[in-house]
Amino acid sequence: MASRTNGGSSNGPVDKGADFANYFCTYAFLYHQKEMLSDRVRMDAYYNAVFQNKHHFQGKAVLDVGTGSGILAIWSAQAGARKVYAVEATKMSEHARTLVQANNLQDIVEVIEGSMEEVVLPEKVDVIISEWMGYFLLRESMFDSVICARDRWLKPSGVMYPSHARMWVGPIRSGLVDQKKNDYEAAMDDWYGFLEDTKDYYGVDMSVLTRPFSNEQEKYYLQTSLWNNLHPNQVIGTAAVIKEIDCLTASVNDILEVKSSFSSAISMAPTRLCGFAGWFDVHFRGRGEDPAQKEIELTTAPSSNTGTHWGQQIFMLHPPVHVDEEINLDVSFSMNRSKENHRLMEVEFDVKISKSSGKILPPINKKFYIE
Amino acid sequence: MASRTNGGSSNGPVDKGADFANYFCTYAFLYHQKEMLSDRVRMDAYYNAVFQNKHHFQGKAVLDVGTGSGILAIWSAQAGARKVYAVEATKMSEHARTLVQANNLQDIVEVIEGSMEEVVLPEKVDVIISEWMGYFLLRESMFDSVICARDRWLKPSGVMYPSHARMWVGPIRSGLVDQKKNDYEAAMDDWYGFLEDTKDYYGVDMSVLTRPFSNEQEKYYLQTSLWNNLHPNQVIGTAAVIKEIDCLTASVNDILEVKSSFSSAISMAPTRLCGFAGWFDVHFRGRGEDPAQKEIELTTAPSSNTGTHWGQQIFMLHPPVHVDEEINLDVSFSMNRSKENHRLMEVEFDVKISKSSGKILPPINKKFYIE
Repeated sequence: MASRTNGGSSNGPVDKGADFANYFCTYAFLYHQKEMLSDRVRMDAYYNAVFQNKHHFQGKAVLDVGTGSGILAIWSAQAGARKVYAVEATKMSEHARTLVQANNLQDIVEVIEGSMEEVVLPEKVDVIISEWMGYFLLRESMFDSVICARDRWLKPSGVMYPSHARMWVGPIRSGLVDQKKNDYEAAMDDWYGFLEDTKDYYGVDMSVLTRPFSNEQEKYYLQTSLWNNLHPNQVIGTAAVIKEIDCLTASVNDILEVKSSFSSAISMAPTRLCGFAGWFDVHFRGRGEDPAQKEIELTTAPSSNTGTHWGQQIFMLHPPVHVDEEINLDVSFSMNRSKENHRLMEVEFDVKISKSSGKILPPINKKFYIE
Repeated sequence: MASRTNGGSSNGPVDKGADFANYFCTYAFLYHQKEMLSDRVRMDAYYNAVFQNKHHFQGKAVLDVGTGSGILAIWSAQAGARKVYAVEATKMSEHARTLVQANNLQDIVEVIEGSMEEVVLPEKVDVIISEWMGYFLLRESMFDSVICARDRWLKPSGVMYPSHARMWVGPIRSGLVDQKKNDYEAAMDDWYGFLEDTKDYYGVDMSVLTRPFSNEQEKYYLQTSLWNNLHPNQVIGTAAVIKEIDCLTASVNDILEVKSSFSSAISMAPTRLCGFAGWFDVHFRGRGEDPAQKEIELTTAPSSNTGTHWGQQIFMLHPPVHVDEEINLDVSFSMNRSKENHRLMEVEFDVKISKSSGKILPPINKKFYIE
């Protein structure tokens, strides 16, 4: 008998090395920072949030969680902050420090390389500013680090930038549903050719792996959410808020799972229900007793003019549902973190469809992966 | 003052979690296995090596290091092995086990999920078979695991499949040199537009990051080796063997660094010296006192008919050298493992060019990354 060892996939507590390899590495590239800094919707929202609410920054201590190239820390200083702590886990911290100096703000902005969970600050802060939002808001699970920062370092009277966040889901139509189905079918055709060749040339019948291969390809092409910037007219029914987060009070427990039931009417017929899109918005409202002078919204909803680098996450229904009269959807939605990688998500949709004629279609249950 | 913590980049011993995330994950997909199993040059070589040398397998104990989908283990059993231990670090082991059963070889082939370094076998083996070769032979550093397997589990009289390996370098011409230069210049143009926008709209001068950004882009576009399947007529001068490995005796120390000096004559003028290509071949010769009945070669050299999934690694010279008369190259080559990730490589070329007219061109020194 031969003994076995564990290959190393991580089901237990977070493996820091793997987490760094899987996650933080991307943010260490200026190319990636530039992509985010070129997102005008994102930049305008934070810029306006800071400079139209200078009263929150003037003479104050600010903490920027995940400063990246340092832009939010620099704006905070330019808006009058007394001190800004700019925390960054990757080597991007070195570029942030360079940029702070080039803008002559080194006496105000202190760039600290380290993980937010481990950094020690010399004082509590008045403001926590952070651009922590991942695809569909919670991918990357970076808000965990913001919560940790808030609980450890925000004064009782402190303000969160942004202060609120919401997740949205709406029914959509999209040609991607056909494209991905074609891609999947081409991959399977290719597989069958491969099976024949392997048997003919090399004497091994691999057909027993057809099921696992098709599962793998289905997961890749059909069950993994897609990035897209939709046009608003692709949203074919009412969209619903499925989660609201008060950044001042939310706990990690509150965001581990997102569960929501909502109804959506599709009055645009004929059309096809091709799936659902998920997006988010965040708001800069200050705090109840210390509100923003000017409330700012950053939305990643489908837009006819400017998309964001977040786009929307698209969850496809295969096959799509032909809508030939007014229908009503009753949707149960749930999202959990992936067991293999806590920064990725698994999503489940339960959809009941009733036609205005009274007819009820077979219920739909689909699982998706946000990778 | 704020305290710092270490962000987690790995310079010390191998972080197993990061290694798994960076490396093994790919091999857990059937899609990737299929790519390798569809490489006819690779498949034909191993198939012929096994079935034209059945005397090495009949009634013997075999160890397959990194069995993947299990194909080499299955062939070994079909060629008459008494017992095959098929070791695989990823969950691909489950598919290998399924495939073994479907081919009714479960009494001979034992699939073991685990890392080669930790697995314990119940006996020593007569043959170690493995397809361990990465790009330019040594990328992935998987031969380390084969060496470990050999030192622990091969009988003193045992045979290695393959038995020998060689690395080659040759001077080439390729339009990729222009393409990559254009890509790099487009990325820089884009950066300058970005700098203007960021200053105009958001009041932050990022020009101090131009140098690190261009370094990052240069590394990506100009200093990272490229995958390509060259046509033989793109090799414009004599190619040289820069490393020979006897798989039966090589130690990890022998492959940590590859150093070689060689000369190459370019007699095809006019042309452009656009850089160098690196490739490898492996041989199945059995062992001195127990040779192969039929020696098989697997080469990844530029070929006019069939490429391999390994292709060649291309190291570009920017700018290329115009060759208007016969020239001779004196090349010093060295390759080391990357400090950040022991499975990646760093390569350095020192090139002296002398024309047949006696004129000597300025020496060229270039560093490259095999990512």
